[in-house]
Amino acid sequence: MAFTIIRTEGRARRGRFETAHGPVETPVFMNVATQAAIKGGLNSEDLERLDCRVALCNTYHLHLRPGEGVVRELGGLHGFMSWGKPILTDSGGFQIFSLASLRKITEEGVAFRSHIDGAKIFMSPEDSIRIQSGLGSDIAMAFDECVKLPAPRDYMAASCERTYRWLLRCRDELLRCNDAEGTVNRGQQLFGINQGGTDRELRLSHMEKLAALDLPGYAIGGLAVGESTQEMYETLDFLLPEMPADKPRYLMGVGTPENIVEGVARGVDFFDCVMPARNGRHAKLFTRSGTMNLKNEKYARDERPIEEGCGCPVCRRYSRAYLRHLFKAEEILALRFGVLHNLWYYNHLMEEIRRALEEGSFEDFRREFYRQREND
Amino acid sequence: MAFTIIRTEGRARRGRFETAHGPVETPVFMNVATQAAIKGGLNSEDLERLDCRVALCNTYHLHLRPGEGVVRELGGLHGFMSWGKPILTDSGGFQIFSLASLRKITEEGVAFRSHIDGAKIFMSPEDSIRIQSGLGSDIAMAFDECVKLPAPRDYMAASCERTYRWLLRCRDELLRCNDAEGTVNRGQQLFGINQGGTDRELRLSHMEKLAALDLPGYAIGGLAVGESTQEMYETLDFLLPEMPADKPRYLMGVGTPENIVEGVARGVDFFDCVMPARNGRHAKLFTRSGTMNLKNEKYARDERPIEEGCGCPVCRRYSRAYLRHLFKAEEILALRFGVLHNLWYYNHLMEEIRRALEEGSFEDFRREFYRQREND
Repeated sequence: MAFTIIRTEGRARRGRFETAHGPVETPVFMNVATQAAIKGGLNSEDLERLDCRVALCNTYHLHLRPGEGVVRELGGLHGFMSWGKPILTDSGGFQIFSLASLRKITEEGVAFRSHIDGAKIFMSPEDSIRIQSGLGSDIAMAFDECVKLPAPRDYMAASCERTYRWLLRCRDELLRCNDAEGTVNRGQQLFGINQGGTDRELRLSHMEKLAALDLPGYAIGGLAVGESTQEMYETLDFLLPEMPADKPRYLMGVGTPENIVEGVARGVDFFDCVMPARNGRHAKLFTRSGTMNLKNEKYARDERPIEEGCGCPVCRRYSRAYLRHLFKAEEILALRFGVLHNLWYYNHLMEEIRRALEEGSFEDFRREFYRQREND
Repeated sequence: MAFTIIRTEGRARRGRFETAHGPVETPVFMNVATQAAIKGGLNSEDLERLDCRVALCNTYHLHLRPGEGVVRELGGLHGFMSWGKPILTDSGGFQIFSLASLRKITEEGVAFRSHIDGAKIFMSPEDSIRIQSGLGSDIAMAFDECVKLPAPRDYMAASCERTYRWLLRCRDELLRCNDAEGTVNRGQQLFGINQGGTDRELRLSHMEKLAALDLPGYAIGGLAVGESTQEMYETLDFLLPEMPADKPRYLMGVGTPENIVEGVARGVDFFDCVMPARNGRHAKLFTRSGTMNLKNEKYARDERPIEEGCGCPVCRRYSRAYLRHLFKAEEILALRFGVLHNLWYYNHLMEEIRRALEEGSFEDFRREFYRQREND
């Protein structure tokens, strides 16, 4: 397994990351299938049609329901959800810190209560990796603490230290799991996660220690959690040049189309975000010229597709008027249509970005991207 | 437009009904798309894949939202929902009597309040037909009163009389609408509705008057509304031989797979029912050997499809274990999968019935149908 950089333009990179389920052409946007399904009624056949390249599933949710034992028996997530392309699983850390209650962090791990039934659960770095190994994803994420900003610098520094010690335990456990008998996906690879909020010194010292481990990839965690967009971009500006150039870089949980274009320009390779699916379920649809709210009265008799020229399964056949009706009538089909269009938009945006990078015209693309939005 | 009987076996008929959007091969099960969409997130492309032959939309719902004016502007229901095959609209009568509140029936029509916002609405037979003309369906249903059983015989008799007078008004209004400028579907045809509960005399005298009008088709209303299955079959036994043999017969709102097989055996040509979609959304799935509840714990690790050999989009790719997980995790995809499978089952059942009738082997089919269910 390896990461190849095909072409660069400024700090932006057009790359290819090899996984046990085929290559991932980067920059890439991973489509979030939290419970082994995209919210809004999409299945793996839909993801193929939408040109999804990587599905992202959530370890915390799948551990609670149906449990990694069931998924493993059904052939891991690839067999379970019938998806043949790469899958990334997060570590569960972020959900424990955002969904679960009564958290207690120790050096050993995190005790918490399930958000579903209040059951007491304990998760160590080793547990997270064992669960992810059972899920059989191609990329496993290290178990980390996601500190809510703003946080005292002392706490943040101590958290970075612990996240590093946890990373070492994750690395060892993954090696053990990949060698164990009956492992679903022996080619599972670990990405480490850089933390440190917007503090330059913490970020860089943490990153330096991570880089020394020579992991298959590195993620930037703890951004887009409350800081301003400007602070996020500034963090990327100082952090990305210090990340290993020959490893993929994953900006976790980001973001808007603008965030993605700016992330790519600064050297990010992997993205994920619930925004396109969530917005789609709320009738907020992405187009080249910005976002539109399909519930707006002005679309009631609008015969046009969401976006002229869009090749998504919704725009090719249905009108704004019909889609608006479905939203107003609270039909489930409205959610499905909204998500289909928005994920198509994101996946297609990445395809355009990759093509521009291949042609050495990414800066032209970036200017045109903003020019089209000015008319919004 | 005409109805052709291709072959008969006993009282069962294999027929073809011509509409402005192509022929309907009968016996047929119409798929219920209440608000111009199948509940559970299915679109017209899905219906094509499921071999749906006729979509049924609800006049009451579409009149309230988005209003027939919007639908007409978008090209009628066919353009609005992008569906090129035949569409039947009900008259709104059944919903007024089951969903709306504060009903007041006069000779002129029915005053009621919308179940959505409580708005006062009045609907006459002419209104119902004008709405259906705006919707542009291929088959419009006459506006009738659906009397809840049991009901006093006097009331039922008076209701039948009024329903007949309303039918004459519907017929006249449809002729006017089909000739009017800007009509969406000039080939719209009217089906009359027979009422009379389970009372033989009322049913037959009402049917006799309806038959004299030489309408394109006749429906049996007011069954499956509380009487026993045996009473329903007995009503069909005495009623169907008295219905015009050269016109299609539509048994409204019926029913289970068994009801359909028994209806066909007695001479019914058209069916519709919300059951397959509703059951599908509740994890109750139809198979040759009966129904199964996918939420059952015993399916948690079951790798098999819902039904072995089923060609539906769910069974071809996904396991019972995955589907059960989706239901337990309350994913919208579960609803979609349940409905896709159940509508496929119904449409495929009708295809098997038609083939058996063509081959003169319907009685064999009927025996085998029950034999397979004995193992349930």
